[in-house]
Amino acid sequence: MLLRMSSLFVRTLREDPADAEVASHRLLVRAGYIRRAAPGIYTWLPLGLRVLRKVEAVVREEMEAAGAQEVHFPALLPKEPYEATGRWTEYGPNLFRLRDRKGADLLLAPTHEELFTLLVKDLYSSYKDLPLTLFQIQTKYRDEARPRAGLIRGREFVMKDAYSFDVDDEGLDASYANQRAAYQRVFQRLGLEYVVVAATSGAMGGSRSEEFLNPTQIGEDTFVRSAGGYAANVEAVTTVVPPAVPWDDAPAAHVEDTPDTPTIDSLVAVANARFARPDREWTAADTLKNVVLALVSPTGERELLVVGLPGDREVDLKRLEAAVAPAEVETATEADFARHPELVRGYIGPGVLGANRGVDADGAPLGVRYLLDPRVVPGTRWITGADVPGRHVFDLVAGRDFIAAGQDGAENTVEAAEVRAGDPAPDGSGPLELARGIEIGHIFALGRKYADALGLTVLDRNGKSVVVTMGSYGIGVSRVMAALAEANHDDAGLAWPAQVAPAHVHVVATGKDPAVFAAAESIATTLAGRGTAVLYDDRPKVSPGVKFADAELLGVPLLVVVGRGLADGVVEVRPRRAGQAGTGAEQVPVERAADRVGELVDALLAGSGGSEQA
Amino acid sequence: MLLRMSSLFVRTLREDPADAEVASHRLLVRAGYIRRAAPGIYTWLPLGLRVLRKVEAVVREEMEAAGAQEVHFPALLPKEPYEATGRWTEYGPNLFRLRDRKGADLLLAPTHEELFTLLVKDLYSSYKDLPLTLFQIQTKYRDEARPRAGLIRGREFVMKDAYSFDVDDEGLDASYANQRAAYQRVFQRLGLEYVVVAATSGAMGGSRSEEFLNPTQIGEDTFVRSAGGYAANVEAVTTVVPPAVPWDDAPAAHVEDTPDTPTIDSLVAVANARFARPDREWTAADTLKNVVLALVSPTGERELLVVGLPGDREVDLKRLEAAVAPAEVETATEADFARHPELVRGYIGPGVLGANRGVDADGAPLGVRYLLDPRVVPGTRWITGADVPGRHVFDLVAGRDFIAAGQDGAENTVEAAEVRAGDPAPDGSGPLELARGIEIGHIFALGRKYADALGLTVLDRNGKSVVVTMGSYGIGVSRVMAALAEANHDDAGLAWPAQVAPAHVHVVATGKDPAVFAAAESIATTLAGRGTAVLYDDRPKVSPGVKFADAELLGVPLLVVVGRGLADGVVEVRPRRAGQAGTGAEQVPVERAADRVGELVDALLAGSGGSEQA
Repeated sequence: MLLRMSSLFVRTLREDPADAEVASHRLLVRAGYIRRAAPGIYTWLPLGLRVLRKVEAVVREEMEAAGAQEVHFPALLPKEPYEATGRWTEYGPNLFRLRDRKGADLLLAPTHEELFTLLVKDLYSSYKDLPLTLFQIQTKYRDEARPRAGLIRGREFVMKDAYSFDVDDEGLDASYANQRAAYQRVFQRLGLEYVVVAATSGAMGGSRSEEFLNPTQIGEDTFVRSAGGYAANVEAVTTVVPPAVPWDDAPAAHVEDTPDTPTIDSLVAVANARFARPDREWTAADTLKNVVLALVSPTGERELLVVGLPGDREVDLKRLEAAVAPAEVETATEADFARHPELVRGYIGPGVLGANRGVDADGAPLGVRYLLDPRVVPGTRWITGADVPGRHVFDLVAGRDFIAAGQDGAENTVEAAEVRAGDPAPDGSGPLELARGIEIGHIFALGRKYADALGLTVLDRNGKSVVVTMGSYGIGVSRVMAALAEANHDDAGLAWPAQVAPAHVHVVATGKDPAVFAAAESIATTLAGRGTAVLYDDRPKVSPGVKFADAELLGVPLLVVVGRGLADGVVEVRPRRAGQAGTGAEQVPVERAADRVGELVDALLAGSGGSEQA
Repeated sequence: MLLRMSSLFVRTLREDPADAEVASHRLLVRAGYIRRAAPGIYTWLPLGLRVLRKVEAVVREEMEAAGAQEVHFPALLPKEPYEATGRWTEYGPNLFRLRDRKGADLLLAPTHEELFTLLVKDLYSSYKDLPLTLFQIQTKYRDEARPRAGLIRGREFVMKDAYSFDVDDEGLDASYANQRAAYQRVFQRLGLEYVVVAATSGAMGGSRSEEFLNPTQIGEDTFVRSAGGYAANVEAVTTVVPPAVPWDDAPAAHVEDTPDTPTIDSLVAVANARFARPDREWTAADTLKNVVLALVSPTGERELLVVGLPGDREVDLKRLEAAVAPAEVETATEADFARHPELVRGYIGPGVLGANRGVDADGAPLGVRYLLDPRVVPGTRWITGADVPGRHVFDLVAGRDFIAAGQDGAENTVEAAEVRAGDPAPDGSGPLELARGIEIGHIFALGRKYADALGLTVLDRNGKSVVVTMGSYGIGVSRVMAALAEANHDDAGLAWPAQVAPAHVHVVATGKDPAVFAAAESIATTLAGRGTAVLYDDRPKVSPGVKFADAELLGVPLLVVVGRGLADGVVEVRPRRAGQAGTGAEQVPVERAADRVGELVDALLAGSGGSEQA
């Protein structure tokens, strides 16, 4: 393959696009790989399309090697299957919905569990037909509230989604393990670092899921790891619950004047100044903070929620949203407070909240819905609001003075507090460290949710009808390309791994000497004839400086410079990234250039891939 | 490549799907290539996807060979560019429209002229950047009123669309010719017969267009040809206008009683019975039929239209719609007639229509809009309605008694009458014959419509800003696959050309003898190892009858049967279509089977392609 810069449809830009926050977005636009068509919606230019197709090819090969069969579903789908599973509603505003000329409701699919389930129901009926894994590489749609970071969070994007169908749980376990291994091979081949973390299933449903994260500072996902091997998306981390504390010796709760203490900091300061404890200072961890939020259901209903948690922790909105999905979380408004005069801002205590306020004849709490951090176990003692401006209550004991977290089986806890470095791993494997990453894959053991909802059964060995159990396995193909760009760039531009680069070699002819162009042409065509993918900068009136800047921006892994050295019979061969493919720039006799480039390309293609981080 | 029937995701069906009218639809569903997801929206199963990808590959290769560069646009697009060109409105109900969560209007693109224009405007600015041809192979959307015939007229479909950009008309001519030649190569390679016909441009706009039609009885498009080489889509045929006739000798028009003559047939019968002419019988061609229709604009406005044409011709609604695009044509309703009491059904004459009824102060016609067949030239004499039930007027002379077609430059003609076999070709090349075909490609010399609307200019050689001139070139990739199925099937099933078949060879093991399965397995793996695509029916408990029926239905071009003959050391090799690849079934020694199959596959792949019909 030979692409010539003189005719290639590309324009490199010296300026960063105004809306680009991250390197992959900035560089993919500047290098002419992608172009924005609408918020979160991109056009693929020739070089970008080449990289995307190479990523797709790796994914496809590994899916096929894992025994998955490729199909292709429409993106435009009827409402009914999604209504049957509840997702038509649950997706809320994230779903692109439309009506056809006859008034039928349609959607642009964000993921295809329903359709795969119905297809298998349509064609298969016996345990003998299973196990089965199908996949597609397809354009998907999601009406993101905040599309951002170019290809990382778009509204139209390319996904590989696979679905497994098994007759029993052991089968699902095997299919899940098989896809998990295929994912490891995909990211390994793509040269992309990854971490596999426990995750929440969200709107997808299912019993168990894991995310593949590419660790990077610009990632949207926070995950945790312990030295002992625990790894989880921060949404999936469960709090280590301390043991209950006996409260027999606790003094009775007492209300104190704490003027001007609407914040935890001001409260701690006043507490230490006016009500100093003998053993140590009061800290924020001694206070019970009650945070007022609003849940908005997919159909738009609004409900207030108060989260009670130790005052030294913030509410992590992503953790809370994962816990209350499919509802979304918003901050409480003036109007919300106006409707609830019992909520005295800055001085809210548990007494006015949830069932602490009493219950109606049906046992329903009279107060605003109230959920507690799991740490608020029976016997813990708190300073918290007295529901009067300027006053707090001290020695308020959970389980004695208000319903404690999980007390008597109460379902009043929520995993909404931020996870902090140093928190204990839930499996006892040591303190957690925090890191950020891009979600590049997500695998779900769905179980029978979709098969139940849509009636996918088969006859088992004994002729008995059984509900099929399913898995669902996604890779964000266009997002993976962005992650590769993030992981492979420097200040000057992109620096693709050879496996996905739009070309293997970038041949640059410098100067005006026709002999230089003739030699460069010869090297380029020789290489292309041997199956090497060549990008040849044959532009006659462009300065060497511009050509080199373009070459660094475009990021082809190997550069061949034909210029002044030709007078001495040599060309320069150098890797885009110093240290790759040998030690750096080499002066190679012109007649050996094609051979030497071939060796280096082979070395790059055989070079080290990505790896799983412990 | 080796696919095993025992695990391949396919189920053949013995029954035709209820909604299938044509063979390609019926067989592609029955053979498990596609599956309906919604009206006009299909899922691609593994075998169908393989064929689609092969068709795509041929199209892509020929596009690249013609110098076109591949890009990929989103399907979900903002309204604004389509508003700038008027197509947001003109597409009317054919466009899928939706709103995002922020209320922005979006569409699912039926074709991408606007976006390609804007992209080139975005990146290019000089004549030196041109000529340029870009293409994509992409999923497109069209909310068809009547999706039908499976892949032939769908609402979600795969298109190759290419766009050329040139600085001047000569450039456009060359780009157009270049794409035209590429289309000929594509259909040639795919083994698909085609005719190139003059066409109308419709909503696309532009000065000139040609359609590539695959001739077939089930085609939706009617086209005409003359022995002298004229060929056109029936919508593009222009009527040969007879010369005006002197009317000096014509008697004055006279109204006669013609009771119970609301139809042309009844009118002709009564005319001959009561008002016999001496020279010959009256025929339908002597009557002027006025057909009442309604035009519905893309924005839903309804306007009545009366078409006046010789009574021996029907209105061809497709020709009329092409003439009045982007309006759609509907039949007139009771309500329409109720609003126009001057229209006496069955007895409408020109006097109450259009400007014949008089004009208002601004010169606008007082009657319902009235368009005439071009044959109604000055001096032609007609029997037509007298606007009174049971009465007709005789010897009504066009140009004397009502405004004739084109009289004094009047723009009152329409190409709406049916074209009939034997009608003269407009270029004088002889009588026309009619045939039907599937539109598989359409090429447009767009000119400057889109570049003007969206401001795509470049600086020319002299530094002057000039508007770019464009072409647009489409191939219905999924529809081409259906056309291939139509052209390559028999009662038993599909019979793919080797170039696009999902596999080259179908190996069938019959009976229960393990030696048979071992030999079949060996042949299958040997062939697959050599790069032949093999479908191996390795199902252990399926009867030979079922296996052969499936093989005929699936349509792989070469069949290898391993069965009883193995005792004598031979297997049977036979083509799916009698007469192809040799003379028929051959008994081949088992140890020579792979070699012989390889020879036959090579012969099939090298075999004759499609051709252009004169």
